[in-house]
Amino acid sequence: MRISELAAQSGVSVPTIKYYLREGLLPEGERSAPTQATYGEKHLQRLRVIRALVDSGVSIAETRRVIEALDNPPAEPGLLLAAAHAAVTPPIDESLDLTAAEKLVEGLGWQPGTCDDEVLHAVARALQGMERAGFAVPDAVMPVYLESIRRIADAEIAGVPTDSVESAVRYVVLGSVLAEPLLLALRRVAQQVSSVERFGGAAPGAASGL
Amino acid sequence: MRISELAAQSGVSVPTIKYYLREGLLPEGERSAPTQATYGEKHLQRLRVIRALVDSGVSIAETRRVIEALDNPPAEPGLLLAAAHAAVTPPIDESLDLTAAEKLVEGLGWQPGTCDDEVLHAVARALQGMERAGFAVPDAVMPVYLESIRRIADAEIAGVPTDSVESAVRYVVLGSVLAEPLLLALRRVAQQVSSVERFGGAAPGAASGL
Repeated sequence: MRISELAAQSGVSVPTIKYYLREGLLPEGERSAPTQATYGEKHLQRLRVIRALVDSGVSIAETRRVIEALDNPPAEPGLLLAAAHAAVTPPIDESLDLTAAEKLVEGLGWQPGTCDDEVLHAVARALQGMERAGFAVPDAVMPVYLESIRRIADAEIAGVPTDSVESAVRYVVLGSVLAEPLLLALRRVAQQVSSVERFGGAAPGAASGL
Repeated sequence: MRISELAAQSGVSVPTIKYYLREGLLPEGERSAPTQATYGEKHLQRLRVIRALVDSGVSIAETRRVIEALDNPPAEPGLLLAAAHAAVTPPIDESLDLTAAEKLVEGLGWQPGTCDDEVLHAVARALQGMERAGFAVPDAVMPVYLESIRRIADAEIAGVPTDSVESAVRYVVLGSVLAEPLLLALRRVAQQVSSVERFGGAAPGAASGL
C-alpha cells in the first residue's frame, strides 16, 4: 500500500509516519518508483506498536530502543528482559548511593548479580526522590509493596509464552512497558475504592453528580 | 536568605528557581528591596517537593496542580485522594469506551461511583494502548494484578497518618505520585529476579562483569 493508505489504515497522519521513518522507528518501504514506496502489513503492525509505546509516555529515543530489542532479540531468552528494561531505564548515575536500594530489594529475593545495574539504580533514584521531598513509605506499607510486587512479577514471568521465540520476545518487551500505565491506573482506582470503604464518602464526580 | 543562598542550599540553580517563580510553583519571596527578595525555610521545603515531582517525570503543569492540592486541600479528607489523582491524571477522553475498564476494576471491589471518572478513563486508556499494540495480559496474570494492587492500596490507605490534617495531605498527595517510580522500579527488579530463578542465567552486567 502507499503511504496515504498506511496513514488511513493506522490512523497515524502522513507527516507523523514520515517523522517515524526519519527517526528510524519504522523501516523504509519498498521503493516502487523514485518518489514512491510501498508499505505492507509489517509496517502497519509496527506503527501500532510505536503508537502504543508513545501513547504510554515512552519517549522517541526509548521507543527506538524497545523496537531494536524487538528486532534484534538477544540469543539467550534470559537476557530478553534485561534488554527490554535497558531500553526504558535511564542510564546509571554513578553518584547514587545503592546501599538502601540493595537492602530494600533483598525483600524481593534479590542477591548481588540477579539484576542489572540500571534497574537497581532506578530503585535508588526513586528512593532518593521520595527522601528529597521529605516523604517516607510507612514501615507497615513497604513489606506489602515488596510481597505484592514479587507476586506480580512471578505471575508475569510464569506467563511468558513458550510457543515461539517471537511471541516470547513480544510478551517480555511489550509487557514490561505497556503494563505499567495499567498497573498505575489500577492502583489509583484501588486507592479510591479502599478510601471510600475505609473513610466513607464517594468520589467527587459521583457525589456532586458531575 | 537571598536567592543565591536558596540555590546553594537546595542545589537548584538560580535561573531554575526564577523559572519556578514565574511558573507559580514557588511563592514569591518577601521583598526586602525593590530588586531583592528574601526566602525562608518554606521555600526550601517547597523546592525539594518540586524537584522530587519533576524528577519523577511529573510535568510542570501537573506539579503545579499537585502543589495547589497541597496548599488548598479539600475540606473533606475523603476528597484528598481524588484531588491528588486529578492533578496527575490526563483529562477525560469522551471517545473512550469504558465497558472493559469497568468490568476489570470490579475485580478491585469497584462499584459505580466509588472512584472518579479520570482514573477509570486512565484504566481504559491503558487497556486501549495494549490492545492497539496487539498485546494482551494473560488470563492467569490479570487476577494477580488485581489482587496484588488491591493489597497495596489497602496498606497505603491504612497507613494514612491521623496525627494532623497536614501530614495526611502530604502523605496522600505525595505518596500517590512519588511511590509510582518506586513501584515500577521494584517490579523490574522482581521480574529479573523471578526470571533468573525460573530460567537460570544472570543479568548481563553481572555475567560479563561489566
